[in-house]
Amino acid sequence: MSFIEATYRLRCTAPEAEPLAVAIAWEQTVELPAAVVPEPVARAVVGRVVSVKADPTSSAHFLAVIEYAEGLASGALSPLLNLIFGNVSLFGNARLVDLALPIALQRSLGGPTLGVRGLRRQTGVSGRPLLATAIKPRGADIQTLSELARGFAAGGGDLIKDDQNLTDPSFEAFASRIGTLAAAVADGNEQGGGNCLYWPHVTGPDIERKLDMVQARGLTGVLMAPMIVGPEVTSRAVRDRGLGLMAHPALAGSFTQAQDHGIDHGVLLGKLFRLLGSDISVFPNAGGRFSFSVDECGSIARALRAPMEGVAPAWPAPAGGMTYDSLPSLIQDYGPDTVLLVGGALQAHGERMIDSTREFRARIEQEV
Amino acid sequence: MSFIEATYRLRCTAPEAEPLAVAIAWEQTVELPAAVVPEPVARAVVGRVVSVKADPTSSAHFLAVIEYAEGLASGALSPLLNLIFGNVSLFGNARLVDLALPIALQRSLGGPTLGVRGLRRQTGVSGRPLLATAIKPRGADIQTLSELARGFAAGGGDLIKDDQNLTDPSFEAFASRIGTLAAAVADGNEQGGGNCLYWPHVTGPDIERKLDMVQARGLTGVLMAPMIVGPEVTSRAVRDRGLGLMAHPALAGSFTQAQDHGIDHGVLLGKLFRLLGSDISVFPNAGGRFSFSVDECGSIARALRAPMEGVAPAWPAPAGGMTYDSLPSLIQDYGPDTVLLVGGALQAHGERMIDSTREFRARIEQEV
Repeated sequence: MSFIEATYRLRCTAPEAEPLAVAIAWEQTVELPAAVVPEPVARAVVGRVVSVKADPTSSAHFLAVIEYAEGLASGALSPLLNLIFGNVSLFGNARLVDLALPIALQRSLGGPTLGVRGLRRQTGVSGRPLLATAIKPRGADIQTLSELARGFAAGGGDLIKDDQNLTDPSFEAFASRIGTLAAAVADGNEQGGGNCLYWPHVTGPDIERKLDMVQARGLTGVLMAPMIVGPEVTSRAVRDRGLGLMAHPALAGSFTQAQDHGIDHGVLLGKLFRLLGSDISVFPNAGGRFSFSVDECGSIARALRAPMEGVAPAWPAPAGGMTYDSLPSLIQDYGPDTVLLVGGALQAHGERMIDSTREFRARIEQEV
Repeated sequence: MSFIEATYRLRCTAPEAEPLAVAIAWEQTVELPAAVVPEPVARAVVGRVVSVKADPTSSAHFLAVIEYAEGLASGALSPLLNLIFGNVSLFGNARLVDLALPIALQRSLGGPTLGVRGLRRQTGVSGRPLLATAIKPRGADIQTLSELARGFAAGGGDLIKDDQNLTDPSFEAFASRIGTLAAAVADGNEQGGGNCLYWPHVTGPDIERKLDMVQARGLTGVLMAPMIVGPEVTSRAVRDRGLGLMAHPALAGSFTQAQDHGIDHGVLLGKLFRLLGSDISVFPNAGGRFSFSVDECGSIARALRAPMEGVAPAWPAPAGGMTYDSLPSLIQDYGPDTVLLVGGALQAHGERMIDSTREFRARIEQEV
């Protein structure tokens, strides 16, 4: 039998650590007192506490490794999430800090449809980070947004996504807007000789209809926020259709930013987002306007790229306050297989989007 | 124009409070520096900071009220969640503690399909709390689980739900299992002359097919975990079909248990769960094996029941370590419009489920 191995960081005293680990193993599987669980059921279903050790980095924390029988996840993402962190989330003193899955489960979850290679093929870019931007701000008229998109494509940008707050009052408005923007990007590509992609934001309601429209427009991917729409819904949306996915971390901070509970940055925005099918995982880079540290960002990037049997590597996309001057250090920190997602800084850099994009693109090429 | 009014509790110093509130108002709407947002767009789209005040309960916290234009939510739950807490979740020092919506948006989200009245009609119970239990443990054979279900129905229980960790290896296994359990509950009802409901757990994959099967079996509701499956997916699943929903808080603790960020208990498990269509919202009661306080539980119950134009009131379901002896205080604390969800204590109370259920039911009737 194969096992799902989850590591929890517990905030507790030394005598509390082992009982807390055991409580998690029971809570996540049978949710019953031992007295009423028949012994064969307990043996087959209750999680096994493999080890409980002091956390070498903190005297107030312990690391507990628990093995769950693979079958408890029913081969799917929602049961897996419930198994590894469903009720434990309510404890408030246990954080999921590592996760190892059986290869069969990894394969069945599947991961990115494009991955690093597929997206390089689609964009035609090799050996350097991709330059991406967001269509914003919401509220600007469609001509203004189209001009930004056209300029970015013409200037040599690689990928344009809708901002995750760009939603439309109706399906028809969505269809019309993405049609206009797709045409603007195509114009820009023709003008600049490039191959820039446009990935619209898809959210509820009418997700399936919107995905049909994305494909009808000949677009190859979407931006979605898995923690808002639902991780498994997001996964099925892209994997069933072979669409690329740029995953947005909206709402995910509630998991990562809790010191003593929640889910570790690398596990959620790295490993789990990759497993659900993210070709690109967006996260706020250290030093920007959010609170992620250099280590936390590094753990996300590593989890997206680490060898994982049956699952393609994915792209980290540090974002949130990138500037022209931060490009060299970003490229040095993250390496070539990175999507550099630049929003405001590109719009603020110069008068015309096409010129700003050219300069950012040149700076990237100069650094690799 | 109508506004969505969100109140955030900020952990910061006095001079930081106002700038942080302004930063949230911009982050959640345009995500751009003010310099590149045209003035008319800023006026129409950027959130308006209504007030920033010291939190009377803590010198380290401030309360900021921000108004967002109603149209930014596009009348739907996913855009609304992104608007009120998407990127702010990544800040780590802002907690959503209150939320007021325009009536039109409340009506369009819709809320419970059954509510307090509808579920009283379905169960035929008036004037007292409902007695509910969970089918568990996973791993027990179907005969054992069927006997528990039959005994609970025959003994006068009102509602049986699958445990949220009860998932099946295939759609066929799901269909077969819920068929067997539905038949067992029907048998128990015939035996005891009762009207106990059975609501299966529905999760990914194959949600629509599973819902079809639930309805084909003549069942009137489901258990779902909105934060695992996705809040809007859960909402559509039940509201489009007129199904009842018992909402499970799995994963939701990552939001509620963060002291200085996340989303308040009453806002998430009360107001938002109710708006998405929960007839019953399950949460861990104070004093059980989880860490919710009496105040936090009270805030959930109040949010589920408070008058809300166009939205029916819903049932709180305190759970997680209920016992026979805690019934009187539970009933006193929560009142008659409450679902008392008893799992392990019922199985541990006596040899036979039918007798344990009778005793719990009698105790409830005695207390009201």
